Amino acid sequence: MFVSFPDADWRDDVGPIDGITPVVWHPRDPGPDAPVDAVVAPYVGAARSIAAVGQVPSVRFVQLLTAGYDGILEQLPESVSVANAAGVHDDSTAEMGMALALASQRGLPGFARAQPEGDWTFPGLLPSLADRRVLIVGYGSVGRALGRRLVPFQVELTAVAGHARDGDDLVDRVHPIENLPELLPTAEVVFVVVPLSDVTRGLIGEDFLAALPDDALVVNIARGPVADTDALLRHTGRLRFALDVTDPEPLPPDHPLWRAPNVLISPHVGGASSAFRPRALRMLREQLTRLARGEEPAHVVGVGARPAT
Amino acid sequence: MFVSFPDADWRDDVGPIDGITPVVWHPRDPGPDAPVDAVVAPYVGAARSIAAVGQVPSVRFVQLLTAGYDGILEQLPESVSVANAAGVHDDSTAEMGMALALASQRGLPGFARAQPEGDWTFPGLLPSLADRRVLIVGYGSVGRALGRRLVPFQVELTAVAGHARDGDDLVDRVHPIENLPELLPTAEVVFVVVPLSDVTRGLIGEDFLAALPDDALVVNIARGPVADTDALLRHTGRLRFALDVTDPEPLPPDHPLWRAPNVLISPHVGGASSAFRPRALRMLREQLTRLARGEEPAHVVGVGARPAT
Repeated sequence: MFVSFPDADWRDDVGPIDGITPVVWHPRDPGPDAPVDAVVAPYVGAARSIAAVGQVPSVRFVQLLTAGYDGILEQLPESVSVANAAGVHDDSTAEMGMALALASQRGLPGFARAQPEGDWTFPGLLPSLADRRVLIVGYGSVGRALGRRLVPFQVELTAVAGHARDGDDLVDRVHPIENLPELLPTAEVVFVVVPLSDVTRGLIGEDFLAALPDDALVVNIARGPVADTDALLRHTGRLRFALDVTDPEPLPPDHPLWRAPNVLISPHVGGASSAFRPRALRMLREQLTRLARGEEPAHVVGVGARPAT
Repeated sequence: MFVSFPDADWRDDVGPIDGITPVVWHPRDPGPDAPVDAVVAPYVGAARSIAAVGQVPSVRFVQLLTAGYDGILEQLPESVSVANAAGVHDDSTAEMGMALALASQRGLPGFARAQPEGDWTFPGLLPSLADRRVLIVGYGSVGRALGRRLVPFQVELTAVAGHARDGDDLVDRVHPIENLPELLPTAEVVFVVVPLSDVTRGLIGEDFLAALPDDALVVNIARGPVADTDALLRHTGRLRFALDVTDPEPLPPDHPLWRAPNVLISPHVGGASSAFRPRALRMLREQLTRLARGEEPAHVVGVGARPAT
């Protein structure tokens, strides 16, 4: 079975797998030189080059290195199934959520900005993360990775997902998203980790924000359009925000969100850390081993939307 | 039994305890009006006013609200025993250590400083905390509180204390401080949480720092003089630092440490968070309940060093 990797590093780092013949091919380049059965898509900009995969009639499977797969299925024939990199970014993204929340609670953005002035001003008692009522909105694999990290910080944890369900080792139960109006008024820190969909677009809007108590912290590590930027701007000052994602993205230099009070912005780096590659390699080895054994790969998100050629 | 509190808020928030008659008295003020048996010292500046407690012959016990007790015993008669606030600051300090480490790893100081310019520059893959070899130097109650928070971040944890001992639920064993020369060369993140003593003064000095690999992060949440500031300055650039404490303190505005590369400085706020008061109240209730029952209080650090009057 021939499997293509987007560059030689990916091929070498995955290493030999019984029954797999590796080939180096980036879909933006001509080729491939072999009748490739499965394609590992490039990490950056897969949607920009993935159409070329549809021109290779031997391909039956595409493995993405991202969790998102917007614009992928539309460009592939129905003979190709696609798996996303579910789980690969969980640790990095959950860690970024914790970094943003802890830094915001304990005053680090202000200290970092005061540093070039040599300004040692004791700020008084800042809010700890300890003892806070924390809401995780979106309790999938990133939400649970976040929950595991939050528990030792002695927070009061509440999880919210699309539908009500039983709890796990971290929470007694998972509340349905319809309960947000009852949950938000007592929340002190809210992490938003939902996937972007028609349901979640604009979720962090006027109603959501108006329901939060003064000084609550909203951490968006989901996708920019999950928040309504105009609504965020109306509540800066009263609420606090830590945003790894914005709408639009990149945020233009003159955008008022940059300079609004109590807003911390990072340039969409939730998944972009050294935690990515070892987890991606582990996932690729598991997936390709399944393929080589004739088993179904995990995390299949669908098949191509175009007629088979 | 009469117990004095430094203000009415402390008295009211501790609430009634069987067998205890509360009195409000701050040692910098005249009084007290009652034959006080036990004194709750003020949180800020206890050493500056504690001598007055020695003038009240009925006092047998002083409860501090700080972990440190430098300069306290010297001012009290040997008839007075003193307890520190062991454990009260653990959660706040451990949380600050995590905030400093996560922010440093994931680039938050740079993002915060770029924000007024509206600068959205993707920094590439930054180092996660996940997968790092982490050393906790000082494995007392703050060190363990830190360890509990670190475990879900998927680090490789090593603990170091004054003497070798068996491990706990977090680490297999605790290494003796003499092993530092073997442990530092592979450490990627080092938390220093030792108490300040003759042994630990200057611990983070030339030998310590020279033994660390390039780009290692040193987080000092202990006391400023545990580090040799000149040695820190020699290794900025090659190493990274996150310092909640400095020597001197406050750090003068023109001190070169403020503007050294890859240094994050916070103005000694490890214990100063909203986590302090509920934990201090819990400790006071436990200690005063013990006293009222005629039991020995916990966390006694010694008796006064002056002859009884």
